[in-house]
Amino acid sequence: MNATHDARRQSWVVSANRPGGAFPIQNLPLGVFEAAKRPAIGIAIGDQVLGLRNCAGLLGGLPAGTVEACDATTLNPLMAGGPESWSALRARLSDLLRADHPRVADHQRALAPHLLAMAEVTMLKPAVIGGFTDFYASIDHATRVGRLFRPENPLLPNYKYVPIGYHGRASSIVLSGSAVRRPRGQIASSPGGAPQFAPSRALDYEIEVGFFVGTGNRWGEPIAIEHAASHLFGVCLLNDWTARDIQAWEYQPLGPFLAKSFATSISPWIVTMEALAPFRVGASLRPAQDPAPLAYLASEQDQAEGGIDLRLEVHLRSARMDEAVRISRCNLRQLYWTSAQLVTHHASNGCNLQPGDLLGSGTVSGREDEARGCLLELTQNGREPVSLASGEKRAFLEDGDEVVFRGYCERDGFVGIGLGECRGTVVGGE
Amino acid sequence: MNATHDARRQSWVVSANRPGGAFPIQNLPLGVFEAAKRPAIGIAIGDQVLGLRNCAGLLGGLPAGTVEACDATTLNPLMAGGPESWSALRARLSDLLRADHPRVADHQRALAPHLLAMAEVTMLKPAVIGGFTDFYASIDHATRVGRLFRPENPLLPNYKYVPIGYHGRASSIVLSGSAVRRPRGQIASSPGGAPQFAPSRALDYEIEVGFFVGTGNRWGEPIAIEHAASHLFGVCLLNDWTARDIQAWEYQPLGPFLAKSFATSISPWIVTMEALAPFRVGASLRPAQDPAPLAYLASEQDQAEGGIDLRLEVHLRSARMDEAVRISRCNLRQLYWTSAQLVTHHASNGCNLQPGDLLGSGTVSGREDEARGCLLELTQNGREPVSLASGEKRAFLEDGDEVVFRGYCERDGFVGIGLGECRGTVVGGE
Repeated sequence: MNATHDARRQSWVVSANRPGGAFPIQNLPLGVFEAAKRPAIGIAIGDQVLGLRNCAGLLGGLPAGTVEACDATTLNPLMAGGPESWSALRARLSDLLRADHPRVADHQRALAPHLLAMAEVTMLKPAVIGGFTDFYASIDHATRVGRLFRPENPLLPNYKYVPIGYHGRASSIVLSGSAVRRPRGQIASSPGGAPQFAPSRALDYEIEVGFFVGTGNRWGEPIAIEHAASHLFGVCLLNDWTARDIQAWEYQPLGPFLAKSFATSISPWIVTMEALAPFRVGASLRPAQDPAPLAYLASEQDQAEGGIDLRLEVHLRSARMDEAVRISRCNLRQLYWTSAQLVTHHASNGCNLQPGDLLGSGTVSGREDEARGCLLELTQNGREPVSLASGEKRAFLEDGDEVVFRGYCERDGFVGIGLGECRGTVVGGE
Repeated sequence: MNATHDARRQSWVVSANRPGGAFPIQNLPLGVFEAAKRPAIGIAIGDQVLGLRNCAGLLGGLPAGTVEACDATTLNPLMAGGPESWSALRARLSDLLRADHPRVADHQRALAPHLLAMAEVTMLKPAVIGGFTDFYASIDHATRVGRLFRPENPLLPNYKYVPIGYHGRASSIVLSGSAVRRPRGQIASSPGGAPQFAPSRALDYEIEVGFFVGTGNRWGEPIAIEHAASHLFGVCLLNDWTARDIQAWEYQPLGPFLAKSFATSISPWIVTMEALAPFRVGASLRPAQDPAPLAYLASEQDQAEGGIDLRLEVHLRSARMDEAVRISRCNLRQLYWTSAQLVTHHASNGCNLQPGDLLGSGTVSGREDEARGCLLELTQNGREPVSLASGEKRAFLEDGDEVVFRGYCERDGFVGIGLGECRGTVVGGE
């Protein structure tokens, strides 16, 4: 914790001080937006976006390369800069935006030309995502899904040892707000019969959190668990859209492929790991790791603060409804594996992570019935449809359905922060 | 076929006319090499590399963007240019290099400053590989591996309908010649017991061919099978190094991950699809597709010429041996799925392919015993070690072993062409 987390700190951008808002001065998430000539990096503050281009005069004295990175068209150069650069930039921005700074009038005057109404800004993908890896870190998700398909043996023997993950498709990661076309694919009809090639009839969302890698590692050089947290830059919301019927037919023996690769949506604002620091939780507030993790995945510090108390909500709006209504909620702290363990495991064979790589948590579910992070779980693979406020029922998503994810952190004595939203509407596949 | 395939055509680069050489004037593969200021694009001709930088004067009149693409530091811009650009460049280079051109003396004088001895050139990765997808297109490989683990049911019911594939890790693709460190990972010791984290004891190679995507498709827009072949730029040799013991423990339920992501080696020269045209083969020389492929994967032209008669060899040299000795050979035409079918399937859900994406064939095996493309098959998962010329035995790879892949095409009436080599030596993991 440092002064940037101080609950008494308020911003002269008055919308940032509204209780319950996602983007108070304690948050300062980064994103990329469409600017006149070329994409620009911005931070969210209240209902405004502060563009960082041409701010060199205000950002002097930061670690080498930081100002140049703020002038880039993606966050990758800043991500590569490392925690000292990220932290110094955050401290400076917090100072520039705080209401009680001795030079507040100067700051207001200097920043005024760089402030834009968020509602009028078009956001873009925040980084070039070289590698997208999706994990399976929720034991409750793994157990519930396992129970559907292997009732006698829901959790596989490797689950509590291996942070299970697979490589996803980076090219089809799109920004929140992009319409998602219902994919066509091979769907098994009758046992032993030929499959059909048709639009998916079992389209699902999966609520996840995406961890952006900041600094990478060299090929062949693993990342020790003690250093893993410092390689992560920040988080976003992630919708790992999945066609369950395509998945069921294609996934043996090499895992999910076209059932996932048609689209993955992410929210535009990356909330930094430093902003999340007040909301870290220890092992007592997470599922017990039993048996103890193997030595390469075990560190006292990670046990003490490896979890993140981040509340997640899924809202659904059918074409007939005016507003999205919440259909489930869960918490990131319910993951079995910590984000540091995901990083260390990923690099443990020498695989090189790179700035801008995205690590998905996997569907975030919890033990409670309301904490089921996808329709596969919520509807028991479609057998028990959920009822919407409109009276409609959903086994899986229908055309026109909008899925909205929200995420936020709260803690007594601290100002809550939010991840904003990740939205996507399903459109017909014909 | 066109004049660039004419068997009578010879080059004034005399080493290109040596019978049996990999790089005659009928080949003209592209790569990227280390040049003075920044990486440069080159083509292989005999034992020389022709650098294409600053050749604008010789490459005038080509389709828009072609000359600029030849000045880039990777092949991606040229790949994005499309078949007309590729074909026009090939025709021009063939003219510039042929011995019987009316202006041969001018060409020799103009190109002399751009010719370098291949032995003195350092090759680099030819393209930025945004997405790496590895398929499983050899039915003989799938059947033999299936038989090892599911004797009663070797080939899964989806195999003859779905071109099975999974997303691989692009960041750890390295160039031929890079030493490959034996990965550490979780290895199951006794059933029900805790796994060990240790260097792999079952390190394997897989001989594959990599297909580079040229022009991509827009997100949400599939590629019809009739157009799929025109999206492919060329091929390389690919070693999909695999740690079998790590794979066995981690791969359920989401497929291979760390067992593969530590390293994938590719050969430096990309042989274009146009150079391969004389060696295309029809359905009668490939495994029968029975049942018939679903409509989206079926085209008469693909049935008539979808295969490639490309001979592949695996050579192994232990630290005690002076020369690598061949341990298996196979042929790309033995794949069940054609490269066009892989492209169309990949994009069938709307997934966007991009210039420079790499599609691995999966291990290329054949029906014959000598056509087993990995040690898992050759040694029956280590139970029947192979004997080397040195008297040593190999269940799996040992430190110091060098694996060498070679690939070449031959056909009566045509000049044979080669892919060159893909080499890698295993080094200890400690």
